[in-house]
Amino acid sequence: MTLDGIWAAVLTPCDAAGAVDVRRWVEHARRLLAQGCHGLALFGTTSETQAYSVAERQAALEAAVTAGLTPAQLMVGVGCCARSDTVALARHALGLGLTRLLMLPPFFYKNSTDEGLYRAFAEAIDGTADPRAEVLLYHFPQVSGVPVTRGVIERLVAAYPAQVRGLKDSSGDLAHTLDLIAAFPDLAIFAGADNHLLDVLTAGGAGTISAAANLNAPASRSVHDAFRAGERAAAEAGMALVRDVRATLQRRPLIPALKAIIATTSGDPAWRRVRPPLVELDGAATQALLAELAAAGWQPPAPPRAA
Amino acid sequence: MTLDGIWAAVLTPCDAAGAVDVRRWVEHARRLLAQGCHGLALFGTTSETQAYSVAERQAALEAAVTAGLTPAQLMVGVGCCARSDTVALARHALGLGLTRLLMLPPFFYKNSTDEGLYRAFAEAIDGTADPRAEVLLYHFPQVSGVPVTRGVIERLVAAYPAQVRGLKDSSGDLAHTLDLIAAFPDLAIFAGADNHLLDVLTAGGAGTISAAANLNAPASRSVHDAFRAGERAAAEAGMALVRDVRATLQRRPLIPALKAIIATTSGDPAWRRVRPPLVELDGAATQALLAELAAAGWQPPAPPRAA
Repeated sequence: MTLDGIWAAVLTPCDAAGAVDVRRWVEHARRLLAQGCHGLALFGTTSETQAYSVAERQAALEAAVTAGLTPAQLMVGVGCCARSDTVALARHALGLGLTRLLMLPPFFYKNSTDEGLYRAFAEAIDGTADPRAEVLLYHFPQVSGVPVTRGVIERLVAAYPAQVRGLKDSSGDLAHTLDLIAAFPDLAIFAGADNHLLDVLTAGGAGTISAAANLNAPASRSVHDAFRAGERAAAEAGMALVRDVRATLQRRPLIPALKAIIATTSGDPAWRRVRPPLVELDGAATQALLAELAAAGWQPPAPPRAA
Repeated sequence: MTLDGIWAAVLTPCDAAGAVDVRRWVEHARRLLAQGCHGLALFGTTSETQAYSVAERQAALEAAVTAGLTPAQLMVGVGCCARSDTVALARHALGLGLTRLLMLPPFFYKNSTDEGLYRAFAEAIDGTADPRAEVLLYHFPQVSGVPVTRGVIERLVAAYPAQVRGLKDSSGDLAHTLDLIAAFPDLAIFAGADNHLLDVLTAGGAGTISAAANLNAPASRSVHDAFRAGERAAAEAGMALVRDVRATLQRRPLIPALKAIIATTSGDPAWRRVRPPLVELDGAATQALLAELAAAGWQPPAPPRAA
């Protein structure tokens, strides 16, 4: 399986006590694959990952693989502030057969130097010590507060050509993403912003790892397929729904908004739950969002056919 | 023991493998107490805390208490992104007899609402579930990216009057610190910026929890003692050295600078080590810093007398 295409940054449903609701999580993951996702990013930013300890994340991932999710269709976030935590998550994931590791830099201290960030990533890769590991560097400066600079990427690619395989650029800055695609032709460069999907594919990038795909994967997938088939006009036309849904969601607190829409359209109110410091969207805000999404032409993806 | 005075935000020395060097850590802690600190804050921001897993932090704390540090003279940082981690650290510390818990808000997601942050702190306090717990809220927006707002403090003080006992304001904004002192007379309000020490004491604040105290505790302690003795002129005169040392340090990467000075003045090069993403200060930068500190009138505190 190649490292490209439409990947969902999968939401993490939680139970009333705040624990990962593995049953709903696995159901949602299966729906997203049925809706056209090439793969799933678990425990990224959209996943409320940092609300869970390393042990909680490991237990949930193990349960999801046991429940039948295919490791080759998954990537998993492993970047923590502490090297020992990152290594523990990475080695555990590899033990389950997951090789794609989405890696934030240590994100507590700000204004890190390239040398310091290089050392942090190098320690994590050296500590993982597994030739199967495929690391995707994770650049999300608005949230992490710690950019993964060009200088850091260059040094890591030079030092670990077999391990550093890609990058997720969640900066939302298309020019930055295109620069990375041009500068690092051997890396699978994903945008976090699915409104840039077609531009990224056109430039030779890998695709998107997108929060909005939790609601709107079929739209991204049809753009992707039209692009690959050389149907440029269809791909461009398809981008309208991708762009409009993203723009509508971006005007809300993203994770609570996505969960509220799933709760409402699936008739499963447990989906509204979020972990602190997030706060769930209230009913009126949810109805207003639904109306805007409908005005943009969005419909809830059809439930997957029974197997 | 009251919750006020001069507290050092204690550096964490590490060994060549990056683990907490407990022997040097305890020695340094003892030196700081001998130099006049009323208490010690372990595993705060100056301590490179986030470089260590929960288990590593617990093991080090346990070793330090076993080695003879007095729990009543300590506070410990417990604020993590995950509630389960915060609760695990808090309960472990309380099990060792440490009751003062310095608590960052969950710091990964930015732009949190007051409601969301209130819930996060409330979950941590409820989960700790120990009437001995004395929580100090930790406001350090430049590093954590997540301010602890007035609204959050008000709600927490109202809901947990017996548990929420203080606040460390590391904003560096004196007006903000003075506002908090006026607004929350029942809280022990500490400044992180020791250049504000005398202003904080004058306004009725508790004192400082300071990184610079790793080098310069005697200067802060003499200001404190002069203030308490009503010797205003002496207190004001003493602030010159406190201010100048801080200003000199602030022009460097603070943690590497503090460690480099200790390494050089104690003749123990192991003290230079820092954990990624930090990078140690080089020799030339260390010599330049030492010269500036000397020009400001700073001298290495005398070693403690043998017991």
